[in-house]
Amino acid sequence: MRIALDSMGGDNAPFEIVWGGVVAAAQTSDHIILVGDEAAIRKSLKHRHPKIRPLPDPQALMAAGRLSIVHTDESIAMDDAPAAAVRRKKNCSINVCMRLVKEGKADAAVSAGNSGAMAASALFILGRIKGVARPAIATVLPSSDASRPLLLLDAGANTDCHHQWLREFAVMGDIYSRLVLGREKPVIGLMSIGTEDCKGNELTKHAFPLLRDYTPGIDFRGNVEGHDVFEGKTDVIVCDGFVGNVVLKTAESAAHAMGGWLKRVIMSKLWFRLAALPLLPALRALKRQMDPEVYGGAPLLGVPGAVIITHGSSTYKAIAFACRAGSRAAEHNVSQAIAERIGALPEVSEEELETAMRGTQAQNT
Amino acid sequence: MRIALDSMGGDNAPFEIVWGGVVAAAQTSDHIILVGDEAAIRKSLKHRHPKIRPLPDPQALMAAGRLSIVHTDESIAMDDAPAAAVRRKKNCSINVCMRLVKEGKADAAVSAGNSGAMAASALFILGRIKGVARPAIATVLPSSDASRPLLLLDAGANTDCHHQWLREFAVMGDIYSRLVLGREKPVIGLMSIGTEDCKGNELTKHAFPLLRDYTPGIDFRGNVEGHDVFEGKTDVIVCDGFVGNVVLKTAESAAHAMGGWLKRVIMSKLWFRLAALPLLPALRALKRQMDPEVYGGAPLLGVPGAVIITHGSSTYKAIAFACRAGSRAAEHNVSQAIAERIGALPEVSEEELETAMRGTQAQNT
Repeated sequence: MRIALDSMGGDNAPFEIVWGGVVAAAQTSDHIILVGDEAAIRKSLKHRHPKIRPLPDPQALMAAGRLSIVHTDESIAMDDAPAAAVRRKKNCSINVCMRLVKEGKADAAVSAGNSGAMAASALFILGRIKGVARPAIATVLPSSDASRPLLLLDAGANTDCHHQWLREFAVMGDIYSRLVLGREKPVIGLMSIGTEDCKGNELTKHAFPLLRDYTPGIDFRGNVEGHDVFEGKTDVIVCDGFVGNVVLKTAESAAHAMGGWLKRVIMSKLWFRLAALPLLPALRALKRQMDPEVYGGAPLLGVPGAVIITHGSSTYKAIAFACRAGSRAAEHNVSQAIAERIGALPEVSEEELETAMRGTQAQNT
Repeated sequence: MRIALDSMGGDNAPFEIVWGGVVAAAQTSDHIILVGDEAAIRKSLKHRHPKIRPLPDPQALMAAGRLSIVHTDESIAMDDAPAAAVRRKKNCSINVCMRLVKEGKADAAVSAGNSGAMAASALFILGRIKGVARPAIATVLPSSDASRPLLLLDAGANTDCHHQWLREFAVMGDIYSRLVLGREKPVIGLMSIGTEDCKGNELTKHAFPLLRDYTPGIDFRGNVEGHDVFEGKTDVIVCDGFVGNVVLKTAESAAHAMGGWLKRVIMSKLWFRLAALPLLPALRALKRQMDPEVYGGAPLLGVPGAVIITHGSSTYKAIAFACRAGSRAAEHNVSQAIAERIGALPEVSEEELETAMRGTQAQNT
């Protein structure tokens, strides 16, 4: 697989990005295309990365046809308005990545840049899969079962959603979970404020019967709550992009705050500090399990092509995992599977849905 | 102050509830009215509570006129639909509590029962404060600064909100934070998915200029995100009840999951287990700081009367704190303050608001 890697996006660009690409090229059979300012990329490649051992040789990878550079001197600044910028700067690195995918010169695009710009560029250049109303960002999260990461979508691409879109999110999440995360029969949940069928807001109350009665091929388990995010019993959680983003940030911050409070309590007494020393390996193991970097970034689902968005603070490690996720999404043809399943979804009139919804409410009150 | 305590509501009713009332009566100058099945209440009072030391004497408190019982034999079952049940069972314990407040025989009502039933009963019997469109549940949360708990509202009373309601939530939260939680100048934030003014969904984009330009007397600091929930720099966070409930449950679950993972890692090796022993006091201190029980339950703001809802799993300790919160809310006349501030809010037409909103968007794109 050929991966177009936006080398100019992210807080640590180009250095960490470029070296993430080198690691991906060295560890897999993929070809990594570094997209961005050629001089800056070559300069980064000349500085040895202090943390990568053994350090692969970029020159050898280039000579072997496993690593290449596509030059562009435009890039999006942090303070650019994302949607406007990708339209104005036709040759910014994100747009070039998307064009490589569009023209069949790359199989996947990966970026740690502004996720709004990434989504806008994908829509602008690749468009949408026929039948998909809105592409969604699906974020992969650690759960208590390390072998069973959770997919949460939409994580922020669509702040206000129609309930019909949530059905598409469920189908797209189901496909990604099967093909890329390797779940045989993913368990799908609808994020709500109570597990009873009738609980929720207008959006989830409408989406509930749609997911239960009109979405063939998914294992819909009903409403889920905050604790389902961490328990490892759900594989895909569906919600609007506002709620998804809030859940993600709250979970991240809660984990971070807990860690900070624990540290403060331990540091408060010399005796605690000494006692904590032998526990350091245990704490490090915990940190590793919760590290979102190893879960391979967030696919933008619903566009015709494999597009992976990673955290702005991504290091080389996160980038290498994201390249692998892009490669797998392309290899298993996630977009094709989405097109087929979305195309086969039954049409549901709003009247029919209202009737189904009233049935759910009546059973529960 | 006289506190009507619903002795039949909650997972641990009546035992923990009744003893929570006894502790509150013994530790404060409040009079606690235990509302519920008299035989069950008297039976609970005869069993000594194993964890309370020193154990106050209920008979002495009753003789001193500090503790009393109001009998009712109706109560709401767990599987009752809340709103319907409080209308059908006129004399259920929650309704009796509210009537005591309505008739001036109690100054506050406290319950660990179904929060939906509590809100329905309050609306049904007490009604709304003039000018308040929707009462809201405000939850008090621990933050990294132990002396500065956070108030989050709405935490679940209104799943779908109009942006005008969020302005009322901000004012009500500001008042409760000042009068009951003791913040001099509470910092108010709007829960969103980015701190820039233009970020958010339709609801928050409309609420933003309302809070910034048309809500005199509040210290509005703009959009906040997940990490602001834990950092102790915001005193009141405003959002719709769906998002509020999701944030609460996600934060609770994240903390719980982290604790569980830490425990599992430590228990995985004998050596870790031994090493962790001397740290137990530190871990207990952390657990205490994060204990939501000590923060006194969630007031239902916007009804004429002090109404406090506590967690269904409340123990005697949480009930005693909730009684104190009810007492303080009544003493500082939170409802009166809300009526005055809400009555003085300027009217804003939707056209005016649209113009202000477009201004915010234009500045940021």
